[in-house]
Amino acid sequence: MIIDRLYQEAVKKGPICVGLDTRLEYLPEYIKQANLKLEEKIFEFNRKIIDATLDDVACYKLQIACYEALGLAGLIAYAKTLKYIRKNGKIVIADIKRGDISSTAELYAEAHFSGDFEADFITVNPYLGRDAIKPYFKYLNRGEKGLFVLMRTSNPGSEDFQDLIVEDEPLYLHVARKIKEWGQEFKGEAGYSLIGGVVGLTYPQEFMEIKNNTADTFYLIPGYGAQGGTGQDLARILQDEICAVVNSSRGIITAHQGVDESENFAQVSREQVLKMKEDILQWLK
Amino acid sequence: MIIDRLYQEAVKKGPICVGLDTRLEYLPEYIKQANLKLEEKIFEFNRKIIDATLDDVACYKLQIACYEALGLAGLIAYAKTLKYIRKNGKIVIADIKRGDISSTAELYAEAHFSGDFEADFITVNPYLGRDAIKPYFKYLNRGEKGLFVLMRTSNPGSEDFQDLIVEDEPLYLHVARKIKEWGQEFKGEAGYSLIGGVVGLTYPQEFMEIKNNTADTFYLIPGYGAQGGTGQDLARILQDEICAVVNSSRGIITAHQGVDESENFAQVSREQVLKMKEDILQWLK
Repeated sequence: MIIDRLYQEAVKKGPICVGLDTRLEYLPEYIKQANLKLEEKIFEFNRKIIDATLDDVACYKLQIACYEALGLAGLIAYAKTLKYIRKNGKIVIADIKRGDISSTAELYAEAHFSGDFEADFITVNPYLGRDAIKPYFKYLNRGEKGLFVLMRTSNPGSEDFQDLIVEDEPLYLHVARKIKEWGQEFKGEAGYSLIGGVVGLTYPQEFMEIKNNTADTFYLIPGYGAQGGTGQDLARILQDEICAVVNSSRGIITAHQGVDESENFAQVSREQVLKMKEDILQWLK
Repeated sequence: MIIDRLYQEAVKKGPICVGLDTRLEYLPEYIKQANLKLEEKIFEFNRKIIDATLDDVACYKLQIACYEALGLAGLIAYAKTLKYIRKNGKIVIADIKRGDISSTAELYAEAHFSGDFEADFITVNPYLGRDAIKPYFKYLNRGEKGLFVLMRTSNPGSEDFQDLIVEDEPLYLHVARKIKEWGQEFKGEAGYSLIGGVVGLTYPQEFMEIKNNTADTFYLIPGYGAQGGTGQDLARILQDEICAVVNSSRGIITAHQGVDESENFAQVSREQVLKMKEDILQWLK
């Protein structure tokens, strides 16, 4: 099952997820000045970072908004990048946060689990309830694909609705437990479900509360580095169990800026990956 | 302001929104057999329906999942269709239900309010709170763009979270009131806000409850026809005030199937639009 593969990668390589949230201003000078189409420039940037970090990370994540913002050219680069990662035997998470009624979710499943935009995992918004989740089960049944459903986001506005109190508990806990419940039928050999949770690293206390209520859940954790989370925060939550991958994007893919704008720029990304790994693994002992 | 334009169109033409949720199996025989690329086939289908219904509808809505499911070709057709609708002076709603933290929402705003995928309105998922909404305000400030935020969806699974009780009231009412609050600074001449709400037609009682709590809100109402809502349901809610557009997709764009598979197929769509209009307007007197 794909979740077993992700778990093993996280154990072997470290629980590092590189966020390829590529924006034009991140491109090093040599790519900016190259005689290439927009989609080729973006892909070149991504490819270099992938090549340089392949052996040191568990997986990659692409925030599709970065590519949608560049229109059709962006989505061509998006499709090429997904393909390149999977061709290299690595796992890729499409951070698309889709959420819609069942007939529409079926189409999103088709869109992101097959064809041009095929990824291994996708992120999903649970607000519409079970209809927004179940259409993906067809792909989960084969063990080849997985979901990360938003449990608790780490942005300030998350308090507007996710913190509202329902039966003496915040809404996000109800959501997290429901996601755990949906995932029970999809457990892999390592004991984790194909339905994982997205939980921000900004509020470690709340994360612990969620973790205590969602055993067997594998987590996708955004918020390391640029968003403030540290390796020590993470270690407190994981408690020596590698049940998560931690995403860092800007901290890795913009590190070359003003440092190395040449064809070797991605070595700076690699150094950042190694630093992040050290920071996390030192606490996990 | 774009919401004034939408309101006037709804009053003049009837509050009809045609959902161009195009799927390959809907194409009439003559398009299926034509020697055209996939993206051209889809666009040809959409163009014919737009041409045939232009004078009788307030606006169009595209469910982007239908296009994403067809990969890059689908999104080329999506972009062409948006452009065609706007070139013809009509309003188009991109049903994308995006929802993400602020830096990402900024990119979604750029993606869907400019460039290849520019639409007039987009639908948004509120689950992440104010961060997921405010990045769009830059475009709303200019009066040129608007949002429809999910208030209450009409799918069975909506009960999982939207019906949970917070301070003696269902969550969806809290969400609806918050959306109304966000919209107060964006009111047009007709008194409606550029931030509208999406409310399903399946539960008229709940819709009334929402409406009583969200004065000055213009609604996008899915669920007419194929999903069960009738003109009479609608009239009870609107109470002679044209403060909504009602979307129908399959009821209009698949009506030709087995009836007319020729180049004139879209006349059948037009007839369905006229019937829908009659059904709605008879009750609105």
